[in-house]
Amino acid sequence: MLKNIGYAAHDSKTPLVPFNFERREVGAQDVLIEIQYCGVCHSDLHQVRDDWAGSTYPIVPGHEIVGRVLKVGNEVDEFKSGDLAGVGCLVDSCRLCTECNEHLEQFCDSAVFTYNSPDKHTGKMTYGGYSNQIVVDKRFVLRISHRLDLAATAPLLCAGITTYSPLRHWNVGKGDKVGIVGLGGLGHMAVKFAHAFGAHVVLFTTSPGKTEDAKRLGADEIVISKNPDEMKQHLKSLDFILNTVAAAHDLDQYTALLKRDGTMCLVGVPGSPHPSPSIGNLIFKRRSLAGSLIGGLKETQEMLDFCAEHNITSDIELIPIQQINVAFERMLKSDVKYRFVIDLASMETLASQENQESLESLDSGVGAAN
Amino acid sequence: MLKNIGYAAHDSKTPLVPFNFERREVGAQDVLIEIQYCGVCHSDLHQVRDDWAGSTYPIVPGHEIVGRVLKVGNEVDEFKSGDLAGVGCLVDSCRLCTECNEHLEQFCDSAVFTYNSPDKHTGKMTYGGYSNQIVVDKRFVLRISHRLDLAATAPLLCAGITTYSPLRHWNVGKGDKVGIVGLGGLGHMAVKFAHAFGAHVVLFTTSPGKTEDAKRLGADEIVISKNPDEMKQHLKSLDFILNTVAAAHDLDQYTALLKRDGTMCLVGVPGSPHPSPSIGNLIFKRRSLAGSLIGGLKETQEMLDFCAEHNITSDIELIPIQQINVAFERMLKSDVKYRFVIDLASMETLASQENQESLESLDSGVGAAN
Repeated sequence: MLKNIGYAAHDSKTPLVPFNFERREVGAQDVLIEIQYCGVCHSDLHQVRDDWAGSTYPIVPGHEIVGRVLKVGNEVDEFKSGDLAGVGCLVDSCRLCTECNEHLEQFCDSAVFTYNSPDKHTGKMTYGGYSNQIVVDKRFVLRISHRLDLAATAPLLCAGITTYSPLRHWNVGKGDKVGIVGLGGLGHMAVKFAHAFGAHVVLFTTSPGKTEDAKRLGADEIVISKNPDEMKQHLKSLDFILNTVAAAHDLDQYTALLKRDGTMCLVGVPGSPHPSPSIGNLIFKRRSLAGSLIGGLKETQEMLDFCAEHNITSDIELIPIQQINVAFERMLKSDVKYRFVIDLASMETLASQENQESLESLDSGVGAAN
Repeated sequence: MLKNIGYAAHDSKTPLVPFNFERREVGAQDVLIEIQYCGVCHSDLHQVRDDWAGSTYPIVPGHEIVGRVLKVGNEVDEFKSGDLAGVGCLVDSCRLCTECNEHLEQFCDSAVFTYNSPDKHTGKMTYGGYSNQIVVDKRFVLRISHRLDLAATAPLLCAGITTYSPLRHWNVGKGDKVGIVGLGGLGHMAVKFAHAFGAHVVLFTTSPGKTEDAKRLGADEIVISKNPDEMKQHLKSLDFILNTVAAAHDLDQYTALLKRDGTMCLVGVPGSPHPSPSIGNLIFKRRSLAGSLIGGLKETQEMLDFCAEHNITSDIELIPIQQINVAFERMLKSDVKYRFVIDLASMETLASQENQESLESLDSGVGAAN
């Protein structure tokens, strides 16, 4: 087994602390990656705090992983030592079902998520990217271009594909007027992609302070959603809306903005239910309310290649792993533009400073850490 | 002006009573139809009782109209005296907008509904098919085949097209497993159409007593939706669900039955909101919740022609107009298999028995009537 170090939550209330754990040895089809950067996704915090229930501790979060290949198994031709590589939300699936056959592994009933999923190799749970290394089957490893800023590429693995996939699935492109709701980690990527696809992009935000930034990111119009007069100007005019806001809110004010046959796609699961949406809003213009979940491996690679071609990455704030708990608190207040990314070099520093014994004592001293 | 007689609601509380009113003279593009049968739609009762607000009294309901052409304007070549003809929920639209140009007049912002819509010709409201005659622009008149039972054809004009249109729009056909929720006026037509299109039809009902009938109508499987074990057997297996139940109910038990990328289409506006649907159910299989509204004139004609070819009509209970208030009460209890249709010959009897003066006294004696 490979000795790894990461940052883990040991329950829903206390801060993340250093954690020693083991990963499987590199198998014939595996790729061992030295993690250089890992994005901080809101779902990391949800699972750390058990907001969705079902969290199994300890949790090492992180599914926006980029780094360098250290070693590959003897049946791996796709990657070699020294290559840049990425890992997103998935590390395995059944590979036999319709979803897997159609390259939509995210919908496989046996999908294994990058962290907090049962791990058949270790008998424990999977551990994510808030750590120094990861071993992943080659089918779930992505190629990363040298042309992109590596740290700013990490969030593409979740925030990127989560917004790219629905915009592609609903054929957003030139001639379309598209609404993006919310300008956070997901929303800012959605604005970039919708703009890159040639759509006329209308950003909806509750924060007047984000107007200039939204324009810079690619929005053609910015609407302050609390202002009914501004909202009215877009009634029945949007072909598609990508709603990135997970907090419970009034969906009707947005469905009313869709044209006949328009769709609003949601990508966030709210902690408490949205007010029940108006069925009349759907019926009287044959509109749809839909959901979308990250993307399959093939599409994630396509997205990464598209980003390399169009020089698209996330706007990030780089932090050392030691600041993760502060970052979580700031994320809760939307105080980040637009994604925290952990520089895992900070983990190495820690690892070299501390010997195994002191790490173990940290590991058991959960409550006091950070 | 043409003197007409109908049955009208004069407020939301009292029974419908005979009502004398005037329709416009037959214009150059108009068709005058002697109404022979008119279906009784649940929305008639909703508007009579002002359940959706916005009712303007007096209301002469009825938008499932079939009868015989009495007279046509001099610019009408499409119909001639003696032809069978039908009128559905729409009698006019702007004819200029995208919706009208795409034969989707039901979504035109200036659509004029068959009753309780402002009528530019009379300055009053439009009056519907619970009456002896109607004058309608030829564009909104449908051709009816002599091969179909005329009374049983009336409900096709609303219940028929409301279910036909979404089944067509979402391409239901051979190889599909389709759910129909509810076996009422709409549901029984949905079962017939889905079966005729070649789909495997699963009917969901709360009433075990409807099983045999559902099979006769074309359902391949019947599921008692109150039985979780029966529901479970269909998890993630349906390509499409047409939900015809307007009463507020748990939508999640049905979205969970959809395959990845499946859609549940609702065709009823609930009086009170459904419990807020699970967004997770949508996200984790990229499912959609949609709405659909009747159908355009072109598609309504296509549906009528399809019905003539496949001998599809509604299962009806024929009533004289004098029983309309009793029929409303029975409809509220779902005590009808599956649609009441008014035989307007009963109106003629009344008209011949009473002279104009006594009709007027009936008209003013609203509360006491029936």
